[in-house]
Amino acid sequence: MKLVPLTDRVVLKQLEAEETTASGIVLPGAAQEKPQEAEVIAVGPGGVVDGKEIVMQVKEGQKVIYSKYAGTEVKLDGEEYIIVRQNDILAIVE
Amino acid sequence: MKLVPLTDRVVLKQLEAEETTASGIVLPGAAQEKPQEAEVIAVGPGGVVDGKEIVMQVKEGQKVIYSKYAGTEVKLDGEEYIIVRQNDILAIVE
Amino acid sequence: MKLVPLTDRVVLKQLEAEETTASGIVLPGAAQEKPQEAEVIAVGPGGVVDGKEIVMQVKEGQKVIYSKYAGTEVKLDGEEYIIVRQNDILAIVE
Amino acid sequence: MKLVPLTDRVVLKQLEAEETTASGIVLPGAAQEKPQEAEVIAVGPGGVVDGKEIVMQVKEGQKVIYSKYAGTEVKLDGEEYIIVRQNDILAIVE
Amino acid sequence: MKLVPLTDRVVLKQLEAEETTASGIVLPGAAQEKPQEAEVIAVGPGGVVDGKEIVMQVKEGQKVIYSKYAGTEVKLDGEEYIIVRQNDILAIVE
Amino acid sequence: MKLVPLTDRVVLKQLEAEETTASGIVLPGAAQEKPQEAEVIAVGPGGVVDGKEIVMQVKEGQKVIYSKYAGTEVKLDGEEYIIVRQNDILAIVE
Amino acid sequence: MKLVPLTDRVVLKQLEAEETTASGIVLPGAAQEKPQEAEVIAVGPGGVVDGKEIVMQVKEGQKVIYSKYAGTEVKLDGEEYIIVRQNDILAIVE
Repeated sequence: MKLVPLTDRVVLKQLEAEETTASGIVLPGAAQEKPQEAEVIAVGPGGVVDGKEIVMQVKEGQKVIYSKYAGTEVKLDGEEYIIVRQNDILAIVE
Repeated sequence: MKLVPLTDRVVLKQLEAEETTASGIVLPGAAQEKPQEAEVIAVGPGGVVDGKEIVMQVKEGQKVIYSKYAGTEVKLDGEEYIIVRQNDILAIVE
Repeated sequence: MKLVPLTDRVVLKQLEAEETTASGIVLPGAAQEKPQEAEVIAVGPGGVVDGKEIVMQVKEGQKVIYSKYAGTEVKLDGEEYIIVRQNDILAIVE
Repeated sequence: MKLVPLTDRVVLKQLEAEETTASGIVLPGAAQEKPQEAEVIAVGPGGVVDGKEIVMQVKEGQKVIYSKYAGTEVKLDGEEYIIVRQNDILAIVE
Repeated sequence: MKLVPLTDRVVLKQLEAEETTASGIVLPGAAQEKPQEAEVIAVGPGGVVDGKEIVMQVKEGQKVIYSKYAGTEVKLDGEEYIIVRQNDILAIVE
Repeated sequence: MKLVPLTDRVVLKQLEAEETTASGIVLPGAAQEKPQEAEVIAVGPGGVVDGKEIVMQVKEGQKVIYSKYAGTEVKLDGEEYIIVRQNDILAIVE
Repeated sequence: MKLVPLTDRVVLKQLEAEETTASGIVLPGAAQEKPQEAEVIAVGPGGVVDGKEIVMQVKEGQKVIYSKYAGTEVKLDGEEYIIVRQNDILAIVE
């Protein structure tokens, strides 16, 4: 199964922060603050949204920062996704 | 009886999640978290809504993810439906 | 006396749900959950509302589903009506 | 003294409900629920309001239903009036 | 010193209600309910406000009714004024 | 250091009310109610703001009345300023 | 890693206020009130935002004052940034 976003919607997958301490111990993501970094999984076709033409500017595979409190969490096949409007994506991390 | 949605309204029917455990026991939907997946039952004709031309992009029979808190629950002939605006549909599940 | 709605207003009359049990006892509407079904009593002429052209799409006598929390209740000659904007009508029941 | 409403404002005077019981006793309005019926006392000239052309559709002397919570109560020469925008008038009672 | 309002702003001065009882005693305004009547002291030049052309329709010296809760109270040289947008003026009292 | 406001922003400096009593004693500003009068320190270039052309109408050195609750207080080199949108300036004091 | 803001977004880095007392002791920033001054780190390309053309007016390296409560705090490689819309930048400090 696969999510095909409508109009200016973007499907994101939150990045699991993983860190290795100096002594080599890997800290699992759950023990840390959740980052707002996510990977772009699928991008809507854009088009006219609320009477305004929207051109999509993000691409699948990009790492992005998105706005806190934005988006809808969705669970599909046991995986968690966040669907946001492109406007809720603040920056691309390069 | 049948619901004929106006303008950009879409009639949805929530999917009953059903699961079979490894040992073959079927868990009824009520014992699980409600998914936001729904089947499209009827689609409005689109047209000018709030002064903006809306083209319908979903079709009857599609499985969609819709926005939590959106829509109006309606009961007809003992069946429960949710009527949402197309804009509250986030993605199609393929 | 008669209500003549302005612009995109629609006068509705809530349908009194009446049910006959298997043994033939009629349950009065008051003992049941109020449905959001209503009959269209009068339809405004449409026209420019908030700078946007509105074309009326419902007709007198139709049975419709309208949005909860929408509309103003009005009592005229002992009869109760609800006046809503056409935009608060979600679907026609056919 | 006389109120001359600006733009799309309408001056209303609430109708005093008066009722005669079967035995001929007149119940004063104060003992009853306030109706939302009012008589149109004065109508503004219409024109451009918030950048949109408004054409006035009600006339002096008409009996109208207006929206609860709308309007400003005004006292002039001991008489009470309500000034509403035409958009807060729901229907004309004929 | 003098207040020169910008764009669609209007400077008002609340009218001090003064009343003479039948026996000739003058009741000072403070002992009475504050009316929403005011005299127009100065009128802005109008022009484009929020992208919309506003034409001023009130004049200095007119007596007007303005919307409760609207406007900003200003004290200048010991005198109190209220600065409102023209849109908050409901009617002219003639 | 100097504040250069963007678009329709205006930098204001609140006027310190100073008063001499009849007997010649000067009351410092802190003992009095804060006036909403301010001097214009710097004026943005105007231009398109939210899709609307804004022409600046106030000038450096003018004394203005601005809207309570509007603006952002800023401290620079120990001096306090208020940055408001021109739309929050109600009137010029001449 | 580097933040590339979308549309009218601007990446800021708050300035760490550092002060040397008369006797030469350096007070660390944490002991003081946080200023709203920030340095511009990266500027989006502008373009059409909500149907309106936005031209970027700030540049990398400028010191700016931005609106309290605006923006989203972001942590990247242990550094803290604030991503704001250009409209939340009030003035440039020169």
